[in-house]
Amino acid sequence: MQLLPVLEGLHSAEAFSRSFLEAFFELVGEIEREPQRFQDALHGKVIATVFEEPSTRTRLSFESAAHRLGAGVITVADSSTTSAAKGESLRDSARIIGGYADLVVWRHPNDGASRLASQYAGVPLVNGGDGRLGHPTQTLLDLYTLHRRWGSLEGRTIGVMGDLLHGRTARSLAWALAVLGARVVILPGPGLDWETGFDRRICDRYDYRLRRVRHAVFQGWTGSDEARVLEPRGLVQGSLFSGDAPTLDTIDALYLTRLQAERGASDAAQGAFPGLKRSDLRDPLLSETLFLHPLPRREEIPDFVDEDPRAIYFEQARNGPLVRQAVFLALLRADQHPIPDLHPLPAGQGEHGLGDCPNKNCITCAEGMQPPWRVEGKARRIFLCAYCDSLLEVHYVGCRSTRRVHPAHSSQVLKIRPENLRPFLERDAAIEQGFTWGG
Amino acid sequence: MQLLPVLEGLHSAEAFSRSFLEAFFELVGEIEREPQRFQDALHGKVIATVFEEPSTRTRLSFESAAHRLGAGVITVADSSTTSAAKGESLRDSARIIGGYADLVVWRHPNDGASRLASQYAGVPLVNGGDGRLGHPTQTLLDLYTLHRRWGSLEGRTIGVMGDLLHGRTARSLAWALAVLGARVVILPGPGLDWETGFDRRICDRYDYRLRRVRHAVFQGWTGSDEARVLEPRGLVQGSLFSGDAPTLDTIDALYLTRLQAERGASDAAQGAFPGLKRSDLRDPLLSETLFLHPLPRREEIPDFVDEDPRAIYFEQARNGPLVRQAVFLALLRADQHPIPDLHPLPAGQGEHGLGDCPNKNCITCAEGMQPPWRVEGKARRIFLCAYCDSLLEVHYVGCRSTRRVHPAHSSQVLKIRPENLRPFLERDAAIEQGFTWGG
Amino acid sequence: MQLLPVLEGLHSAEAFSRSFLEAFFELVGEIEREPQRFQDALHGKVIATVFEEPSTRTRLSFESAAHRLGAGVITVADSSTTSAAKGESLRDSARIIGGYADLVVWRHPNDGASRLASQYAGVPLVNGGDGRLGHPTQTLLDLYTLHRRWGSLEGRTIGVMGDLLHGRTARSLAWALAVLGARVVILPGPGLDWETGFDRRICDRYDYRLRRVRHAVFQGWTGSDEARVLEPRGLVQGSLFSGDAPTLDTIDALYLTRLQAERGASDAAQGAFPGLKRSDLRDPLLSETLFLHPLPRREEIPDFVDEDPRAIYFEQARNGPLVRQAVFLALLRADQHPIPDLHPLPAGQGEHGLGDCPNKNCITCAEGMQPPWRVEGKARRIFLCAYCDSLLEVHYVGCRSTRRVHPAHSSQVLKIRPENLRPFLERDAAIEQGFTWGG
Repeated sequence: MQLLPVLEGLHSAEAFSRSFLEAFFELVGEIEREPQRFQDALHGKVIATVFEEPSTRTRLSFESAAHRLGAGVITVADSSTTSAAKGESLRDSARIIGGYADLVVWRHPNDGASRLASQYAGVPLVNGGDGRLGHPTQTLLDLYTLHRRWGSLEGRTIGVMGDLLHGRTARSLAWALAVLGARVVILPGPGLDWETGFDRRICDRYDYRLRRVRHAVFQGWTGSDEARVLEPRGLVQGSLFSGDAPTLDTIDALYLTRLQAERGASDAAQGAFPGLKRSDLRDPLLSETLFLHPLPRREEIPDFVDEDPRAIYFEQARNGPLVRQAVFLALLRADQHPIPDLHPLPAGQGEHGLGDCPNKNCITCAEGMQPPWRVEGKARRIFLCAYCDSLLEVHYVGCRSTRRVHPAHSSQVLKIRPENLRPFLERDAAIEQGFTWGG
Repeated sequence: MQLLPVLEGLHSAEAFSRSFLEAFFELVGEIEREPQRFQDALHGKVIATVFEEPSTRTRLSFESAAHRLGAGVITVADSSTTSAAKGESLRDSARIIGGYADLVVWRHPNDGASRLASQYAGVPLVNGGDGRLGHPTQTLLDLYTLHRRWGSLEGRTIGVMGDLLHGRTARSLAWALAVLGARVVILPGPGLDWETGFDRRICDRYDYRLRRVRHAVFQGWTGSDEARVLEPRGLVQGSLFSGDAPTLDTIDALYLTRLQAERGASDAAQGAFPGLKRSDLRDPLLSETLFLHPLPRREEIPDFVDEDPRAIYFEQARNGPLVRQAVFLALLRADQHPIPDLHPLPAGQGEHGLGDCPNKNCITCAEGMQPPWRVEGKARRIFLCAYCDSLLEVHYVGCRSTRRVHPAHSSQVLKIRPENLRPFLERDAAIEQGFTWGG
Repeated sequence: MQLLPVLEGLHSAEAFSRSFLEAFFELVGEIEREPQRFQDALHGKVIATVFEEPSTRTRLSFESAAHRLGAGVITVADSSTTSAAKGESLRDSARIIGGYADLVVWRHPNDGASRLASQYAGVPLVNGGDGRLGHPTQTLLDLYTLHRRWGSLEGRTIGVMGDLLHGRTARSLAWALAVLGARVVILPGPGLDWETGFDRRICDRYDYRLRRVRHAVFQGWTGSDEARVLEPRGLVQGSLFSGDAPTLDTIDALYLTRLQAERGASDAAQGAFPGLKRSDLRDPLLSETLFLHPLPRREEIPDFVDEDPRAIYFEQARNGPLVRQAVFLALLRADQHPIPDLHPLPAGQGEHGLGDCPNKNCITCAEGMQPPWRVEGKARRIFLCAYCDSLLEVHYVGCRSTRRVHPAHSSQVLKIRPENLRPFLERDAAIEQGFTWGG
């Protein structure tokens, strides 16, 4: 029934569980304390790094990690020499490069490329960033940097700021913070909020809720003194979106991101783009706040912040190779370094049949495929592209067992077991396939 | 007398002998069975990979092989950073990079580049593909893939299909199949046959002959139901090119290739380009046929073939690193892994003096050199560019010992020992140099 | 007081001392004699090579050296994938890449980039060539090649020829030859002399003097039969620049360089560019002369020179990896291979305050910074950009101790201790800051 098998590798921060993260941090800590002990752990192994978007730091960070463990590295760093230039599909490339290495790290410009490639590589595949979708090892190093300072992140308040629409690091981080029970304050630049429905997916999956808070300092960043907060449902009392938003009283860390001009953000937006000003550094709300950034930065963090003890973005970068060493060990030396399995993506997946993915940057569009779907949602089933997580238009849903078809919003649909779901765009299509109308 | 010394390295499939190939396959098999045993075989060695044409798979395959043996790798993968951009000759580049490594793998856009570079590198040089001329390690992996299935290839029938004109893999494969006593069915796309005289060179060197066969399935591929076959002279009875061509009754493997748009093939030809159709898969002629392809493929192998058990092109690709490990061991650890020597190219080589090579893509044209020549042929001497194998225009041939000069087609010429040959374009040039007319 | 800390790494040939060079040559010799002994010396270490200008040979030479010592290598070889493309400063790049490696080799198009990057990398940084300024490891291999032939270079006469203006190798070599007590004959192509004041800086620092010599062979190279010579003051008698220049009677080595078209030299100059002609090879002045060249060469060394025993430029190239192995050992295994410290650049350095660097190719201009200055000079203080060594305009100089300000050419200024110097463009600026006029 699982069209996407349990993904061997690391594709999405959504796959993290708390037990996975805790065991993972412990392994990173071991490597940090005793690097010499791991120096030949992958002797004889070959790791491939395939970077089909310009990148320096992420690639080097992975490669440094591979060398620190004694592995050999083969690399594709120049997108003009990739097989795409010879008109090859990602599926073929994955099959072939997977045949040359024991593990592949892949960065790709299309959303969902990592999940697709992993089905063909035949060896563990690590997502080095795919389109706007995810960058899970960045999230692991972001989290490890905070974990190292604080221990548990539960109940901590972390602001994510900047280009949430085109960036992938903040989206991946939000998923993982929800796993660990932290609050997420959402501070997008103007017109740069993440897509409608993303908040709801987190709330639905992790029993989180959304409310609004207020603080004067937000005004200079986003143009409004109000911001949305994602938080564990049990954490605070008070009604949702009712009355005035309370004032935020603390923010433990602020995760800044840059305008992603190379992924379609207009450079003109740079002027109004949220960033730190001198006066912000003196604001009481930020007095204990750690400043993080996935780097490279632009104007959102001026040079004068670098010397501030709250600035830990270079420490973050230095943690990159350590965290990636742990990723390699978890995937290639699971016998010696057992880490709890990653969560598979929510089950209930299906065959093609809903037309092209509406997301033009989805890997399925680039490959000329129709996307398989998967399902999420508790209060209402939503159908997503199994590769890029875009919402698919579904108006009717059938049950393969009862052979009845219902309107998508019907409560009947919630009773259908995921493996029996069959979505349709039009009722007639269902009737044609032998379903009967269930109302 | 040998202007080109016995080439240290691997440049041309023409240099393979049967004993070389058999010993080589045995070594590949050993590596496949016990990879761990070879994991430090090249510890302390450095291998350079220089790829002056866009490429991913071949370079990674070589580099994976190097790492699997514990060697260090230095690489040039971006043609814009090569020294050619600073106006440097291949000879200088070879001298310098040869000084940095224990072995160099070189891919180059010009025909014959590998042979020229090998004379200057000072260390073994492996041809990673030079122009249209050759790609001998691809041939070794093609052969190993078949050898692994069949054992001996003697008497097997292999079709080579597609862009034989611009491609180098089919040309290299044909040489090697002739060494092993296999039949070659020649199935070029329209206007994409290899150069006149290539068949004859194989026939002449390996005691092969050419005949025609017929099969309806060819019509959909090449536009004709007849095809040429190269086969060992002793293999079948029947007169050459007389009467109707018999129907081919079996084809053991079909080697497909893509249109080489990047080497000058017109993309417009893609429409009529030979490839597999769904109906072909059901044709009795192909019921036991293995499908090979050097990859990347384009439309000539549609995706639906991938799941067919006859499709072994991904297995082929996976054999790449193994085969290249064996190449490295044969060249750098000949003491421990003795492989019979490669055949030197046929002897009888000479100084410049015949003007520029007629092949504008020859490395000698790119380097501003006049080509040395070498000689081949039993029934009639032919003079070839010693680097790119292009036929040189020769009207008169002198003997350095008798000091007589003869018309090139004279039977006298066949009696001259190769080392005494002296070709001329015009008779007067010979007379001027003190030769007397021998008729 | 030192704004630039003692530079950890290798940035400028100006930092070489005689004892450093002698110990260094000894280490190179050891590696050359017993390469196996060093083959795991850097096992477990990671070396980064960052090449932000097209280059093949230098990068490969460094990487070969790293592998010969058992280190892992991470590399950025394509300037289009560098973080500069994402708008990142060199300072950030240095901080981040320094966090991934134990040592970084950096090539950069801007003058002084190496010194700036070294302040942020946190690990030893080796200059792989920065703008027009320096290329110290090239100098080390140039020197080692001569040392291997001659032993001491003291009193030897070495000509440096070609594009001295845009090239960095000749400038670096001249500094180092002065350290070792050799004579330097300056033979620039037309309009390609190094900047005014460079001769004087060498004379001033190493107690050298400048005189003119004459030889007919110079005419064909530079358009004049006279040339300048830098030599140790004690070496010969005779008054400086008075009377006719004597004829040069010997030249032990000639260091040729190519026109640096990629650093702004006009290609049109190639016609009149100095190079070796067939007749030069027969000139008695050159009968014992070794020919060196940093390579790649263009027309200045025609192919026919290659077979001449005086041509040692390929030997030079082969020494590259050896010399770079010694650089890595000296910086990363100083415990086992003690090499005397490099000279820090001359002391007396200061804060910003003199406006932008006048050199538009200085790294400070690229980074939007004001340059710190440093001071040199015995007969007269000169103030240089601490990164690119360009002369800064200074009209007044104050003493931080006496709080008096003097005209820059005043003898009073020579009495001020370097750490008390405070340069000004205008007298009023000094008065405003509380200095009083000292005349």
